[in-house]
Amino acid sequence: MSSEGARVWLIPDGFIPEESSGSQESHEAICVLNTSAEEARLSISFYFEDREPIKNVEVAVPAERTRHIRTDQLGGAEIPRGVPYAIRVESSVPVVVQCSRMDTTQAALSLMTAMAHPVER
Amino acid sequence: MSSEGARVWLIPDGFIPEESSGSQESHEAICVLNTSAEEARLSISFYFEDREPIKNVEVAVPAERTRHIRTDQLGGAEIPRGVPYAIRVESSVPVVVQCSRMDTTQAALSLMTAMAHPVER
Amino acid sequence: MSSEGARVWLIPDGFIPEESSGSQESHEAICVLNTSAEEARLSISFYFEDREPIKNVEVAVPAERTRHIRTDQLGGAEIPRGVPYAIRVESSVPVVVQCSRMDTTQAALSLMTAMAHPVER
Amino acid sequence: MSSEGARVWLIPDGFIPEESSGSQESHEAICVLNTSAEEARLSISFYFEDREPIKNVEVAVPAERTRHIRTDQLGGAEIPRGVPYAIRVESSVPVVVQCSRMDTTQAALSLMTAMAHPVER
Repeated sequence: MSSEGARVWLIPDGFIPEESSGSQESHEAICVLNTSAEEARLSISFYFEDREPIKNVEVAVPAERTRHIRTDQLGGAEIPRGVPYAIRVESSVPVVVQCSRMDTTQAALSLMTAMAHPVER
Repeated sequence: MSSEGARVWLIPDGFIPEESSGSQESHEAICVLNTSAEEARLSISFYFEDREPIKNVEVAVPAERTRHIRTDQLGGAEIPRGVPYAIRVESSVPVVVQCSRMDTTQAALSLMTAMAHPVER
Repeated sequence: MSSEGARVWLIPDGFIPEESSGSQESHEAICVLNTSAEEARLSISFYFEDREPIKNVEVAVPAERTRHIRTDQLGGAEIPRGVPYAIRVESSVPVVVQCSRMDTTQAALSLMTAMAHPVER
Repeated sequence: MSSEGARVWLIPDGFIPEESSGSQESHEAICVLNTSAEEARLSISFYFEDREPIKNVEVAVPAERTRHIRTDQLGGAEIPRGVPYAIRVESSVPVVVQCSRMDTTQAALSLMTAMAHPVER
C-alpha cells in the first residue's frame, strides 16, 4: 500500500489543564496513523503566545502502526500546563494526525478532538 | 444521484475506555453515510501501537442508508479495551466516514467526534 | 464578497438522545453560515439504518446570516429520537455546514461537534 | 519556512452559554497558528440569525506564535451570550484556525472543538 495522508499537519488549539480530578489525568495526545510500509520519522514543534517555539522534538512511528503521543510525556521537551499552545507535525512519509484533549478539571471528564489541518507541499 | 465522498478514510485516534458508569456503556462508532444507489462494501482495518494490524473486517452499507458501526460489536474481530488504536476504512463506492467516542468512565458521559480524513486515490 | 464554502455537505453521525436531565434538552443542530449577498435555499435529507430517507426538507438562510437548525424542531419532518441517522445538506449557493450534539442523558451535559464533509460538484 | 494554511476560515457554530458553574467560565476561543516569519493581521467578522454582522474586528498574531482569542474578551466588539452566531476570519498571511467551546452551564464542564473550514481564494 502506498503512503496515505500528508507530510505536514497543524493544530492551533493545544492546552493542558493544570488540574485533574478522579482517576484520569488531564492531558492531550497527538495521535498519528502510519499505514505505509516505512517508519515515519516525526519532527514536532510547539508554538506559544509569548515565547519562542520549541522546535524539532523527534518521535518515530513504525510501519503499519499508530502512536498516541501525550504532550505531557515527551522526552526532551516540557510543555507547560495551563498555557495556550499550538502544534506542527512534520513527517518523513505521509501520515494522518488527530489531536484530542481530556479535561478532568471538574468532577466529570470531558473530551474533545479534531483532525489536524494538512498542508500540501 | 452520483456517489459522494471518498473511497478511503483514516482515523488516528481510536480508544475504547475500559470502564463504564450509569446507563451508557463506553464505546466508539464508525459512522458511514452512503448516498449512492449502490451497496457500499467496506473493508475496515485496525492499527495498534505494538502489534500487527487486524485487516479487512467486512461490513456492508446498503444504498441510501447510514450505518453506525460500534467497534466493540464487530463480528469476526475483537478490539481490546483500554488500548490506543487507529482505523482505516476502504469502500467499494464513495462514502463519508465520521468517528465518535462516548466515554462513561466517570459519573457523567463525555462525547467527542471527528470527520475521518479522506484519501484521494 | 463572493460566495464561500460548498453546495453539498454530508454528516454521517446524527443521533438525538431519548433522555434529558437538568435545564438543557438533548438535541442536535445543523449550523449553516451564508456569507454571500444572496439567500441560501437549503434542501436537507435524512438517512437511516433501516428505513427510507426523508428527503428535501426546505430551510432558508438569509444573506449574511447564520442559522442553527435543531433537527428536533423541523417543520414538516420528524426525526425519531434514539435512532442513528445521517444528514445531507444541499444549498442553492455555497455555504459552510457544521453539526453539533448536546447530550444531557446523564447529570452533566456533553457536547460534540464536527465540520460537515464538503462535496465538490 | 513558507506560510502554511489559508487566508479565509469559516466557523458556523458559535454560541457563548449564558450560565457558568464551578471555577471555569463558559466561553469560546478562536485559536490561530501562524507558522510564518511575518505577523498575521486578522480581520474577524461575526454573523447572527436576526441582526446585521459585526465586521472587521482586528487582531494580530505575531510571527511563529499562536493566539487563543476568547470571543467574550474582544476589544471593540461585544458578542451577546445565549445567541447563535458564526465566525469568519480573514488573515493577511496564511494561518490555521480552530474554534473550541467550554460549556460550564451544568456542574461538570464540557468541551467541543472543530477545525474551521478553509476557503481557497
